[in-house]
Amino acid sequence: MSEQKSGANKMWGGRFTTAPAEIMKKINPSIGFDYRLYRQDIAASKVHARMLARQGIIGEADNEAIQAGLDQILKEIEESRFTFSVDLEDIHMNVEARLKEIVGEPAGRLHTARSRNDQAVTDVRLWMRDAIDGLDAVVQELQRALIERAGEHVETLMPGFTHMQVAQPVTFGHHLMAYVEMFGRDRQRLAGARERTNICPLGAAALAGTAFPIDRHFTAEQLGFSAPTENSMDSVASRDHIVELLFCCSMLAVHLSRIAEEITLWCSDGFRFIALSDAFTTGSSIMPQKRNPDAAELVRGKTGRVVGSLNALLMTVKGLPMTFMKDMQEDKEPMFDALETVQLCVEATTGMIRDLTVRPDQMRSFLERGFPTATDLADWLVREGGIPFRDAHHITAKVVARAEAKGCTLSALDIESMRDVDPRITEKVYSVLAPEHSVNSRRSYGGTSPEVVREAIARANARWL
Amino acid sequence: MSEQKSGANKMWGGRFTTAPAEIMKKINPSIGFDYRLYRQDIAASKVHARMLARQGIIGEADNEAIQAGLDQILKEIEESRFTFSVDLEDIHMNVEARLKEIVGEPAGRLHTARSRNDQAVTDVRLWMRDAIDGLDAVVQELQRALIERAGEHVETLMPGFTHMQVAQPVTFGHHLMAYVEMFGRDRQRLAGARERTNICPLGAAALAGTAFPIDRHFTAEQLGFSAPTENSMDSVASRDHIVELLFCCSMLAVHLSRIAEEITLWCSDGFRFIALSDAFTTGSSIMPQKRNPDAAELVRGKTGRVVGSLNALLMTVKGLPMTFMKDMQEDKEPMFDALETVQLCVEATTGMIRDLTVRPDQMRSFLERGFPTATDLADWLVREGGIPFRDAHHITAKVVARAEAKGCTLSALDIESMRDVDPRITEKVYSVLAPEHSVNSRRSYGGTSPEVVREAIARANARWL
Amino acid sequence: MSEQKSGANKMWGGRFTTAPAEIMKKINPSIGFDYRLYRQDIAASKVHARMLARQGIIGEADNEAIQAGLDQILKEIEESRFTFSVDLEDIHMNVEARLKEIVGEPAGRLHTARSRNDQAVTDVRLWMRDAIDGLDAVVQELQRALIERAGEHVETLMPGFTHMQVAQPVTFGHHLMAYVEMFGRDRQRLAGARERTNICPLGAAALAGTAFPIDRHFTAEQLGFSAPTENSMDSVASRDHIVELLFCCSMLAVHLSRIAEEITLWCSDGFRFIALSDAFTTGSSIMPQKRNPDAAELVRGKTGRVVGSLNALLMTVKGLPMTFMKDMQEDKEPMFDALETVQLCVEATTGMIRDLTVRPDQMRSFLERGFPTATDLADWLVREGGIPFRDAHHITAKVVARAEAKGCTLSALDIESMRDVDPRITEKVYSVLAPEHSVNSRRSYGGTSPEVVREAIARANARWL
Amino acid sequence: MSEQKSGANKMWGGRFTTAPAEIMKKINPSIGFDYRLYRQDIAASKVHARMLARQGIIGEADNEAIQAGLDQILKEIEESRFTFSVDLEDIHMNVEARLKEIVGEPAGRLHTARSRNDQAVTDVRLWMRDAIDGLDAVVQELQRALIERAGEHVETLMPGFTHMQVAQPVTFGHHLMAYVEMFGRDRQRLAGARERTNICPLGAAALAGTAFPIDRHFTAEQLGFSAPTENSMDSVASRDHIVELLFCCSMLAVHLSRIAEEITLWCSDGFRFIALSDAFTTGSSIMPQKRNPDAAELVRGKTGRVVGSLNALLMTVKGLPMTFMKDMQEDKEPMFDALETVQLCVEATTGMIRDLTVRPDQMRSFLERGFPTATDLADWLVREGGIPFRDAHHITAKVVARAEAKGCTLSALDIESMRDVDPRITEKVYSVLAPEHSVNSRRSYGGTSPEVVREAIARANARWL
Repeated sequence: MSEQKSGANKMWGGRFTTAPAEIMKKINPSIGFDYRLYRQDIAASKVHARMLARQGIIGEADNEAIQAGLDQILKEIEESRFTFSVDLEDIHMNVEARLKEIVGEPAGRLHTARSRNDQAVTDVRLWMRDAIDGLDAVVQELQRALIERAGEHVETLMPGFTHMQVAQPVTFGHHLMAYVEMFGRDRQRLAGARERTNICPLGAAALAGTAFPIDRHFTAEQLGFSAPTENSMDSVASRDHIVELLFCCSMLAVHLSRIAEEITLWCSDGFRFIALSDAFTTGSSIMPQKRNPDAAELVRGKTGRVVGSLNALLMTVKGLPMTFMKDMQEDKEPMFDALETVQLCVEATTGMIRDLTVRPDQMRSFLERGFPTATDLADWLVREGGIPFRDAHHITAKVVARAEAKGCTLSALDIESMRDVDPRITEKVYSVLAPEHSVNSRRSYGGTSPEVVREAIARANARWL
Repeated sequence: MSEQKSGANKMWGGRFTTAPAEIMKKINPSIGFDYRLYRQDIAASKVHARMLARQGIIGEADNEAIQAGLDQILKEIEESRFTFSVDLEDIHMNVEARLKEIVGEPAGRLHTARSRNDQAVTDVRLWMRDAIDGLDAVVQELQRALIERAGEHVETLMPGFTHMQVAQPVTFGHHLMAYVEMFGRDRQRLAGARERTNICPLGAAALAGTAFPIDRHFTAEQLGFSAPTENSMDSVASRDHIVELLFCCSMLAVHLSRIAEEITLWCSDGFRFIALSDAFTTGSSIMPQKRNPDAAELVRGKTGRVVGSLNALLMTVKGLPMTFMKDMQEDKEPMFDALETVQLCVEATTGMIRDLTVRPDQMRSFLERGFPTATDLADWLVREGGIPFRDAHHITAKVVARAEAKGCTLSALDIESMRDVDPRITEKVYSVLAPEHSVNSRRSYGGTSPEVVREAIARANARWL
Repeated sequence: MSEQKSGANKMWGGRFTTAPAEIMKKINPSIGFDYRLYRQDIAASKVHARMLARQGIIGEADNEAIQAGLDQILKEIEESRFTFSVDLEDIHMNVEARLKEIVGEPAGRLHTARSRNDQAVTDVRLWMRDAIDGLDAVVQELQRALIERAGEHVETLMPGFTHMQVAQPVTFGHHLMAYVEMFGRDRQRLAGARERTNICPLGAAALAGTAFPIDRHFTAEQLGFSAPTENSMDSVASRDHIVELLFCCSMLAVHLSRIAEEITLWCSDGFRFIALSDAFTTGSSIMPQKRNPDAAELVRGKTGRVVGSLNALLMTVKGLPMTFMKDMQEDKEPMFDALETVQLCVEATTGMIRDLTVRPDQMRSFLERGFPTATDLADWLVREGGIPFRDAHHITAKVVARAEAKGCTLSALDIESMRDVDPRITEKVYSVLAPEHSVNSRRSYGGTSPEVVREAIARANARWL
Repeated sequence: MSEQKSGANKMWGGRFTTAPAEIMKKINPSIGFDYRLYRQDIAASKVHARMLARQGIIGEADNEAIQAGLDQILKEIEESRFTFSVDLEDIHMNVEARLKEIVGEPAGRLHTARSRNDQAVTDVRLWMRDAIDGLDAVVQELQRALIERAGEHVETLMPGFTHMQVAQPVTFGHHLMAYVEMFGRDRQRLAGARERTNICPLGAAALAGTAFPIDRHFTAEQLGFSAPTENSMDSVASRDHIVELLFCCSMLAVHLSRIAEEITLWCSDGFRFIALSDAFTTGSSIMPQKRNPDAAELVRGKTGRVVGSLNALLMTVKGLPMTFMKDMQEDKEPMFDALETVQLCVEATTGMIRDLTVRPDQMRSFLERGFPTATDLADWLVREGGIPFRDAHHITAKVVARAEAKGCTLSALDIESMRDVDPRITEKVYSVLAPEHSVNSRRSYGGTSPEVVREAIARANARWL
């Protein structure tokens, strides 16, 4: 970016006699990051000019000149022929200064009935709306990948864990569907953030509204907003819609971190439940045998960064009096970074979900450890023996102790050993001790049995895709 | 709380031969804080038992015994006649152990087709639903106080600030209404969190669902939930509804911190815009003249604590594999603390808003400083002189410089000095230089003019109260 | 705690005519948590009185009355015979009011030349000093446990992981010693925090110092402080020593979270590297076979809480102007909670380290997977064949591919297959392919070979215990 | 940066058959930010090669070729003639690949007895050491500015505030010196972080050390480190030195936020205690009269960002098992950003401190409000009347009430009114009621009297500059 040689700022420097300190040139300008808003800035200016003309605040000729000039600037930027200037501080001034070069005097009429305060927040809201829609789409794509892979593995047995201990048999399809629910709620939260974002602050002017007879409903509608904001001071002073979006990203990142942790675990030498292809692993510079699930680790690691951005903005906004304070310029970089990071992480996760190869034998082998059908035994005692659950639980614990002592699974424990614990146990018990039986029996709504999971998949398809 | 002398845990210690380490007795039990869930735990157990009987899983006599026993326990707790035991770890075990004492064997049947995992998250969701409703009600009350005070001050002029510099005249009523919007969005967010909370996980059992023919829709409906959860693993493994509520509280706390900052500023010797009565101030042990706005400072200071709780849970949940991990026991204390803190802060803020006395003269006096109607002059030049805004801005800057040099307000600057800057300025300009005129002219939607604010108040009444 | 029926506060309410609002009684008092400072408050008051008498500011008789009265109060509190009053707001007022009851007029002379501002921060610094010493002692004890267990396992082979993939063989002793280093740095940080804490603010008075001829050096020395603080305003306005301690706790908690994660992993069905006894595990209410490493999970989970407290105070202090603001009352609860939590977590971790049983066979079995001596092969090629490392790395990768294809370890791969990849490989290579050889060869300073680890243990003993 | 067209990674891709996924190319490479470490990477490689040659591990000719090649690469980079490649992932691979182009085979010998794991952490530690020294220097410069300005204003009276209420008179010099203390502690913390950073991990290799006979003490010494690290696994797995530096930056940022808040307040229309020149203020696009203290607001606002980075890394590292996990790649960006941000903020603050013009009259005028010498009256009653402080406090409160009722200062209150409250008050009391007298009397160590502040300045000069 180029710097002007001159002294005081062209746009607001009317009363200033000295140039800014060197350090101010480093800390103050936002063009280094808010140039990303050029498309939104131009779109909003075009609608603003059209509204001004429609209301008779500027002439139609001025409006036409402005429209043409802005179209040209957009083209220049998209074709990388535009020179951004740090001296002009931000995207708004950069565009307006160039407009003046192109169309002359009419450019000076564009800023009628608005201020940088309402202009900047409008641009950001437009950017956010697109960013939310883009993020929602990739999360939906992740749900699609999960649902598809779940469909393939409705009958693939795996150990269900609590405390990282084998607890009860589930299916890999059921496990994946749990994440579809989490990401579904993330999408609901994004939808809520979108509603609160998609309201138009343009026309709030500096903070008090304007005396020009503007039509804020027209502006809002033309820019696709649902309505104009209700209070001009709130319009320029509030950032909670951005903080909310950063929270949505943080929660999503935390969910991604959980699936990333599982992918890392499942790829580890301890589990080997899945394999990732070369496309999603890297090697070691010194240990040639390694296939490291880098993408999963990075997805997990980047959670901190996204939550850091949420913290950054919460802290920045805390305790600020009304209305605009320059502190709020710090809203954009964490937002840009968090959105970009989380979008990347979602896409990487979708890639891994589609890429991973399941090792059903390895999953199945864990069901031989840890007596995962102990609950089924307890439930059988309740159901068939009419024994209170708590008593059945104690009986089961003793049977498990016998199996453990003999070093065998529950299925393999002889009936005498069982009856020795409690004579109410009969041969029929073996029917419930196989993991397959356990899984098939869990037919309660939302349970892991294949038929119930197939129904859940059908509902998820309808709801989320 | 009492401790058992005995060794292994009664409920799950069937296979255990040694007592827990002393340190485990300190770090493990949750009864020290989850006793707060007793009402929810009993309510959920009552519905669960009724459902079990309705489905024929337990007998009607057992159900009746359980219902009576649980009613008695509720009474004992509410009358402080219940002894909580640390050895029984949590509220669920405390209630169930007592139930066994009261009704004997049927108590052992209550835990059929459920687990502590789904039981605990059900209790928490029920608690949260009430907490959200309670918080929403006090925030609404705060809005009511703001709207009422705004109605009193629709015509009370005050300086509107940006960068803590006097920018343009606004009214105190308009300023207060900005907060009504912020708290309105906070209530919307709470409503979103409530929707995602009010779904029933009971019946997910440990993680895989159950083989008993339970009716999760009946249970959900009886407990006032909108539906049963869709996936049993997600049901016991997810905490995002709690994190979301902590975010809602954090955002609300940040908004409260802003109004608290303003109250502190307005009470300070630099501004004296308002006074708080003795009811909301404290004195100094050594400086008897002080009236410190402690409540406002505490409201502002407590923001850190609420955001700290949000961070705590985000970090705790990050990277946890499925399904339940004991780490998640850390979900309750930050939740209890954040809800209690933020409710207290809302009520204190409502109290201050109702209590504060406005000093209109002091507010008005700031409008003599800083040329707050400079924008009105610039706008007049655009409107009356047909001068492009940017040129008008430069002319205005020069006029301001003249007034500053003479040490007078814009209203008091002689016409010659103005015309010397730009001859297009006429005597008519004085009509727009008074703060009252400025405020009255800001009639754009959401602007600060009294009539527009009155309309905003009417809409706010309809929308929020 | 009891509440006075009366109206305005006795201590500072001289000019106040109305009682505080009900909500103020809830939000304002700190006695609910700062009662913990009673010992420090009394100790500091005793030294203050002695100094006042020594300087002739109060009479010796007054001093003696005060000393006796304060001793009595200490006894009353420690024997639970003291009634704390919420109306008296904080520990300082509670003690002083009781002193007045006991000794009458001399009590009124105690507050000469001090203020609650410097009194409160002095108490907290005294508390912190003890808390740091207590925490340092338990962390040292954890180091002791680690060093002792490391000494037992200097030759116990285990897989060293990167990316949770088996990388190279190490020993369990070496692995444990890594944590000794981490906790050593945590202790260094605590020592730094202690230095900055152990400076005496008493005598700063409200904020400006005092006109009484006090001797701050005497006071500081008598209370065991290294010096008086340098600036009275800084003394009452700063909280960075508390924030620093919260950071030390957070970093320590993060280190604990890492070892807790490893314990959880090592106990899991995927690894089974260790077993925890019944003393450190719990069972499941529904799955009797489970032995859940709850303590490890809780240690890991509580990290969030400690970091949350750090965030809370950073946010609370951010942007506060000088000097004391009531926001700072929020410094104590996160401090108390963080110290208590982290102390508990350290002790639980020490308990687990001492309790755990190692399963060397299980650890050793992982060294058959993943070719962990591939690096040794590459190094052999460099050393014996004079081949550049990068080339050796590529040759090794090909040899590994052969072994993988044959489904055997590197040790078991026939020499022909190796020489087929590169004829420079000779039979001698087998000497470096055994994990034992690999470990023994890593003799660089800080490396994993048993003799080097024994030296490291000796140094650690001297340095840390 | 250029991308290779080819498939698998050159350095570690030996066994890989497929190219990485497109998304991996986006998420995995670190060269986009770790290119900043080029100087450190080259310096460390040069010493490593020299050590290898000295130990006879590589030949002297190879060493010489490597030295020359690395010198050339350094020159290429510093002259912007180096093409960084994203396909080569990171700075280490970019440098090594280029070295191979320049010197051929010897380049392949450079990576002997090291790994990217120890190489990367060595580079970062070298970078941090410089960054800490650079940051310490600018903080020292800020202290110098504060001390110099304090020296000018040892006798400039201003109100000292608590609760943002005028409390007691202090001097502007004393106020500034409070910050010298805060920044002094920040420098102490930086020194502690430097000690823990300046230890050499090179030679830890991948995680287990190496079998080559390297001399880690030589390497450490040549690179200016105080010693080699003690444990190879800790060396590559720990990041607490970085987190600690981020905490130091956060605490420093919080201190900066406090002075920034004060500058903002002091520039505001409510106080006008100081003025900033055009060099440190900006104007408004619509309100030409504004002089906004943007630099101060930005310094305050950026606190969030720095604390966000601290949070990011704490969260990223939490719960990671040993040793290196790819998550840790996320350590660099928050570190770079935090250091850069905080350095900028320190420099901007130094600029403002040097730039600001004090308005003593405006400061003095506040001492007419709020009875700031009430404490002096109370102290006089204790000293001259022998009245217990608590009684003196109550008497003072009543005198203040009289003055308030009459709308005059304490100095201006007639003696009859005073004696009416308490007849022990005599004419002599007026001598202590002037703010000048109050300030001059506060001669306790660290107090605000000019002579005491002059001594404090002398000590600060000796200690900090």
